[in-house]
Amino acid sequence: MPNISARSLAAPASPIRRLYSLAVEAKRKGKKVYHLNIGQPDIPTPAAFLRGIREAKIEVLDYAPSPGLPEAIHAVQVYYAELGFDLAPQEILITIGGSEAITFSLVVVCDPGDQVLLPEPFYPNYLGYARLANVEIIPVTTDRSEGFHLPPRQELEACLTPRTKAFLCSNPANPTGAVYTEDELDMLVDLALKHDLFLIVDEVYREFVYEGQHKSILSYPEVADRVIVVDSISKRVSACGARVGMLISRNKEVMAAAQKCATIRLSAPTLEQLGFAAFIADPHHNETIAHMIQEYRIRRDAFCEELAKIPGVTFRKPEGAFYVMFGLPVQDSEDFVRWMLTDFPGKETVMFAPGAGFYATLGKGHDEVRGAYVLKMEDLRRACAILAEGLTLYNAALARAQR
Amino acid sequence: MPNISARSLAAPASPIRRLYSLAVEAKRKGKKVYHLNIGQPDIPTPAAFLRGIREAKIEVLDYAPSPGLPEAIHAVQVYYAELGFDLAPQEILITIGGSEAITFSLVVVCDPGDQVLLPEPFYPNYLGYARLANVEIIPVTTDRSEGFHLPPRQELEACLTPRTKAFLCSNPANPTGAVYTEDELDMLVDLALKHDLFLIVDEVYREFVYEGQHKSILSYPEVADRVIVVDSISKRVSACGARVGMLISRNKEVMAAAQKCATIRLSAPTLEQLGFAAFIADPHHNETIAHMIQEYRIRRDAFCEELAKIPGVTFRKPEGAFYVMFGLPVQDSEDFVRWMLTDFPGKETVMFAPGAGFYATLGKGHDEVRGAYVLKMEDLRRACAILAEGLTLYNAALARAQR
Repeated sequence: MPNISARSLAAPASPIRRLYSLAVEAKRKGKKVYHLNIGQPDIPTPAAFLRGIREAKIEVLDYAPSPGLPEAIHAVQVYYAELGFDLAPQEILITIGGSEAITFSLVVVCDPGDQVLLPEPFYPNYLGYARLANVEIIPVTTDRSEGFHLPPRQELEACLTPRTKAFLCSNPANPTGAVYTEDELDMLVDLALKHDLFLIVDEVYREFVYEGQHKSILSYPEVADRVIVVDSISKRVSACGARVGMLISRNKEVMAAAQKCATIRLSAPTLEQLGFAAFIADPHHNETIAHMIQEYRIRRDAFCEELAKIPGVTFRKPEGAFYVMFGLPVQDSEDFVRWMLTDFPGKETVMFAPGAGFYATLGKGHDEVRGAYVLKMEDLRRACAILAEGLTLYNAALARAQR
Repeated sequence: MPNISARSLAAPASPIRRLYSLAVEAKRKGKKVYHLNIGQPDIPTPAAFLRGIREAKIEVLDYAPSPGLPEAIHAVQVYYAELGFDLAPQEILITIGGSEAITFSLVVVCDPGDQVLLPEPFYPNYLGYARLANVEIIPVTTDRSEGFHLPPRQELEACLTPRTKAFLCSNPANPTGAVYTEDELDMLVDLALKHDLFLIVDEVYREFVYEGQHKSILSYPEVADRVIVVDSISKRVSACGARVGMLISRNKEVMAAAQKCATIRLSAPTLEQLGFAAFIADPHHNETIAHMIQEYRIRRDAFCEELAKIPGVTFRKPEGAFYVMFGLPVQDSEDFVRWMLTDFPGKETVMFAPGAGFYATLGKGHDEVRGAYVLKMEDLRRACAILAEGLTLYNAALARAQR
């Protein structure tokens, strides 16, 4: 049998997938599992979006144009104009989720062996895309006690090599909930100018901000030709399964190359692009988003309030997104997550995402988990109570085993 | 401004895209354009498919599982069982169109610099995926006078190097309509065993066969662990815009790697997977497909009959798919296609895909175009009449210009 590729072997296997099968097993045995491990919101998809799909007049479900349906590109223009950014149609590419926008960004910017700086903990799929594209991720470690904000400029500069092509981050950040300050963004812009870097910024959680203000990287005209924005409707329209994202850049060469990538994969799904256009055409779309953000703010506050009560749990209240990356009084958080699914007594349990998967640096994150507050408030409170009990029982069981 | 990547520069720009803007321009001036340049069928998408989407009970449009919705995987099992192949769920991956199945296949099998043998003329996006993944395409030229069937085994073997990882082809073939004979497939199977190659076969046109019989590469148990089948519902369900494809392999290592690729991009669109499941659940789905194939058979016969009447047009009647790759009495078919859009007099014109874009070998295909018989019969006949007139006028204009 011939060998498969080294790059596909190097792509990270999701620990969550293995753990997920344990959750399925637990549920089969009648256990209720509170899933705080995945960023899948429970908020209903807006009616206008679904109506746009159901009522689309389709006789032949044909390819959308590769750069996106004109209706969807127009909707993106309207949405960005409301944020204060005037985009030309050719500065917008509709992608198959934010996922594809990330892949395109890396492939357009990097050749095999090129490097990209990425603050860790990071969204694990960034590492996956990079490995499959033979791009090297250079992690810049950030710290829980600092709310995972960026380290001083010198620490970033120490990571640069002649092969560094870009700085990549999400803002607001998954998994940390950090929202970068204006000072941090100023520093990144400076860094990009001084060291000739692209800035690839994933702003899918743009609206999910509860402290301070989010500033888009598009606000910096001096790096207009260095900026690639990764975006998606998944979270703000609660339509993760729609697979509609976008790549935005004012750099003509980047857009021409991204359009070539788009032509090669033919098109993003047609119906969901119509759904997005219908959502933006609804005059109440901003209220719908604001209403959802308000719900997440309440959840964040409740979740953090409950977490703060648990002995040994450490975190700084995150400013945005819908995640908290928090420390646990355990040595191996993956083992703890597994134990909660297999050994925790009672009729209910809770699942988090183990921290190590969010780091490229070996040994990091083993005392952390990511919690996504994507459940309603009473479920979040209940999940925290289960977590508290689980920590006590787990550590007692460990102590017994070690005696 | 930092440089973009060499690989994105190397990705082929679609000549069709430039020509397409000329077609848009012609239509703006009131001209009717018969589009025989693109494989976008005009057959209505089956009602059961669209109903499956419209009537889906969706409150939150959430991510499908990365390997595919269980309903969609089951539908693939049912469909393949009807073809005589029993597939386990883990031998199936739902992809975002056949496009993604091709990308995954190349990335799973090849590292940068590895080579893949590909008969030319080929589906141009194969070259695009390969360039973005830094995979080298080694073209194996096939000949119009042979109906684009495979050359003798020695010619294929002469192309092999230590870096050759796979033989890739579509069967039935886009753009040639060739359906490989059992002898040709036997030869490929032998080649794969002797030289330790994967066989990546794109069978999206499996049902589109009008002469002889299509044999799936899945019929060869001796290469079960070397075979990757690329498949899609786009053509047989006339739902190109659904973006639902699949990757099939009995090689566990290949499937594990492909599943990792799938996890990294999260999921294929949810609703269209439900549409496909609804289509397969319709007891009449095979009649729907057979009815469509019958329509294409009639079109192929009419199209070929009309083409055969045009002086200087050369081709062998293709056995499958819905394309004819034919020779024209011109030196530069791209120039001719352009001229038909910009200079051809009258109220109607026709657009084909220039041949050179289907070849990797420089200088090949300049006297060929691909025609897709995706229009109804009277339009195909009219398009051929326009083509005949266009050839006369174009060559007369060229002769005048050269005097």
